[in-house]
Amino acid sequence: MHETITSVTNARVKRLVKLRNRRERDASGVFLIEGYRELSRAVEAGLTIREIYVCPDLFLGDNEHALIERTVAAGAERIELGPEAFRKVSYRDRPEGLVGLADQFPTTLDRLSLSPNPLILVVESIEKPGNLGTMLRTADAAAVDAVIVCEPTTDPFNPNVVRASLGCLFLVPLAISSTPDAMRWLENHGITTFAATPAAMVPHWQADFRGPAAIAIGSEQYGLTEAWLRESTVQVRIPMGGRVDSLNAAMAAGVILFEAVRQRAANESVPTDGV
Amino acid sequence: MHETITSVTNARVKRLVKLRNRRERDASGVFLIEGYRELSRAVEAGLTIREIYVCPDLFLGDNEHALIERTVAAGAERIELGPEAFRKVSYRDRPEGLVGLADQFPTTLDRLSLSPNPLILVVESIEKPGNLGTMLRTADAAAVDAVIVCEPTTDPFNPNVVRASLGCLFLVPLAISSTPDAMRWLENHGITTFAATPAAMVPHWQADFRGPAAIAIGSEQYGLTEAWLRESTVQVRIPMGGRVDSLNAAMAAGVILFEAVRQRAANESVPTDGV
Repeated sequence: MHETITSVTNARVKRLVKLRNRRERDASGVFLIEGYRELSRAVEAGLTIREIYVCPDLFLGDNEHALIERTVAAGAERIELGPEAFRKVSYRDRPEGLVGLADQFPTTLDRLSLSPNPLILVVESIEKPGNLGTMLRTADAAAVDAVIVCEPTTDPFNPNVVRASLGCLFLVPLAISSTPDAMRWLENHGITTFAATPAAMVPHWQADFRGPAAIAIGSEQYGLTEAWLRESTVQVRIPMGGRVDSLNAAMAAGVILFEAVRQRAANESVPTDGV
Repeated sequence: MHETITSVTNARVKRLVKLRNRRERDASGVFLIEGYRELSRAVEAGLTIREIYVCPDLFLGDNEHALIERTVAAGAERIELGPEAFRKVSYRDRPEGLVGLADQFPTTLDRLSLSPNPLILVVESIEKPGNLGTMLRTADAAAVDAVIVCEPTTDPFNPNVVRASLGCLFLVPLAISSTPDAMRWLENHGITTFAATPAAMVPHWQADFRGPAAIAIGSEQYGLTEAWLRESTVQVRIPMGGRVDSLNAAMAAGVILFEAVRQRAANESVPTDGV
């Protein structure tokens, strides 16, 4: 039989709470995945779940058991928490009784593999976990080849990134990189960079995204750093017709990504073989 | 001299805290506007600010004084709060020392005035204040004629809507309505409704948004209600190329709105006078 941890001061509980802190995540190389959908996508993506914390009293349905069995069969240790201890660990208002502790996965640029005509999202120094998570979810929907997170202010293993991404963090090929390394990698792969900046003259829909393309979006507060705004990149802006001077950073990423998707779909539908 | 309220149990402080609650807002007809940018936009839009609560210790810069003077000159009562009392009232992590209490403004459909070729955003039963606020900010950027909030789950006077909208709540013409009333109003004004639904066959970029158009987006969890998915509306979907089955609701609104903006800009750039 499993013993249930009920104390909120239990050492394991305290360790999980500490993992909300980036320094703890960086030092330990692990991170938390909360929620049924998020954990399912992590398992589907082949992540190593070391420990799975469960609180059956909080389960919403019956699917949880199969998922738990699957992670345990793959080597995860199952630990049961009482509702109070679970709520302490959870970073949600309404916890659903499932938190996994997983190994951070490798995120080097050299691990990315590209399609013949890649579409990439590059984001630099995003501050808000909700924005970074939404960007990953949107990038998945746009079927990008990869998301490159440059100079992370918020790291992708932040629990609120996992959450806002709905687990897309595990589905979208992801690299974390410095800005110079990312620029060099993009150049070496013959990918044109489209830098989103309000200073650009060209509306985003006038850029040609049909070839190998990387769309670069800067931080909420400062936008892209100067490095991205040089001659070798195409600068584009989303025309602002109202009083605000910018879109939310995740929104800007989505609007430009789906313009690229539109152009590429239109391109594909042109018959090229004369049939 | 003004007296400073320092007690967190002061009656005024308690009243402001209660206004986070929708029932209190509905009953009193007032709401809170926090922050320099948000209050500035409210003043600019001609809202009636009844009371302005200030905590100079928390000011970020020197602009606050001119804004306070302007609201006081327009009839607002100025009340000074100590930092502790202000933090109690504030709904931000890092309060900036300014909260206004304003009259809710009228939001009936008949108050909307339309351009010859209107573009409208319709949102139904949005749950998350952050999404509704982002939709208002994005709608402003897309220069819509109006946003129609149908069957509100979250009301637009929620403090987090004010915040996420960056005050665009006061800049974008806004109506609150039932779904049947909104549909009738749109029909009466000869506006075609484009309902976003994953069940649609037509990618959003294949719809023609160049005429009078309303883009309708449903709730985060359930999407649009059946009423919107009838023959008289054009159903469109944003093609999903990845593993997730939908975009965030605000993102969906932005992607379709900016496709409409793109089509309309392209339309305008076609020379019509032979020059």
